[in-house]
Amino acid sequence: MNKLLRVSVAGILSCCISMAVHARGDSSTEDAIEYRQAVMEVIAWNFGRMGAILKSKALFDAEEFAKRAAHTAFITQLAREGFVPGSDKGETDAKPQIWTEWDDFKEKMTALQENAAKLAEVAKTATARENVAPQFKKTGKTCKGCHKKYKKK
Amino acid sequence: MNKLLRVSVAGILSCCISMAVHARGDSSTEDAIEYRQAVMEVIAWNFGRMGAILKSKALFDAEEFAKRAAHTAFITQLAREGFVPGSDKGETDAKPQIWTEWDDFKEKMTALQENAAKLAEVAKTATARENVAPQFKKTGKTCKGCHKKYKKK
Repeated sequence: MNKLLRVSVAGILSCCISMAVHARGDSSTEDAIEYRQAVMEVIAWNFGRMGAILKSKALFDAEEFAKRAAHTAFITQLAREGFVPGSDKGETDAKPQIWTEWDDFKEKMTALQENAAKLAEVAKTATARENVAPQFKKTGKTCKGCHKKYKKK
Repeated sequence: MNKLLRVSVAGILSCCISMAVHARGDSSTEDAIEYRQAVMEVIAWNFGRMGAILKSKALFDAEEFAKRAAHTAFITQLAREGFVPGSDKGETDAKPQIWTEWDDFKEKMTALQENAAKLAEVAKTATARENVAPQFKKTGKTCKGCHKKYKKK
């Protein structure tokens, strides 16, 4: 890449204020903690809205549910990279067991991803709560199962 | 939905601790602020890593860049819904002008989404930094343009 372009890219990075923290391209554990908490927050936002649709007595909003399920399926794929080694220290509820039992943790994370993907698939053609509720429940259980073992509170 | 399933869904929601906050299905402004900040964090994580690839003198990692670009393109679509009316109050850097100049804000957000989508598209077949750097820069400018006008710091 020519020098002008390189300087220009550096300029864009340093100017985008909220992005500057990450522009170092390192994988500092603080960044990783913030990142994974953000991913979980986005999952929770979408998951919670699906739950609200299921609990509601209003007409089933299939389109909205499918959108939330698709978002959740995508975002669950992004979580794992935030669990970098050493990031059990700091402002986090992640238990150190995540890293000492990594294969099990990875398996649980994969179960979440697979179940969320299946939920998104089922939701595409759903016309009633009954069509999605069982898979929603399964997906929720994968959250619960992982949190129970690997989350401090 | 039968009662058993409804109760079961409610159980899943109340058990998934980090999701419980959102399970009310309301759109409280605090939730919205946390959500949009989380979305921005995930964008920043991915955008920053693309920047690091562009600034690096190592061999261009086309696959990694394309992955980051795809993540960014998806996540930028999720930001807008976090800017609910009334959420200029609270722990936020969002300026009230977002809501008084909503059409302009929406236009800027759309520009980000469109540029991020184009970047993801370009990145799919990129083999060198030169292929993606100009569109990366354009995308970065859409962040900067919006932050300059609508972000407190």
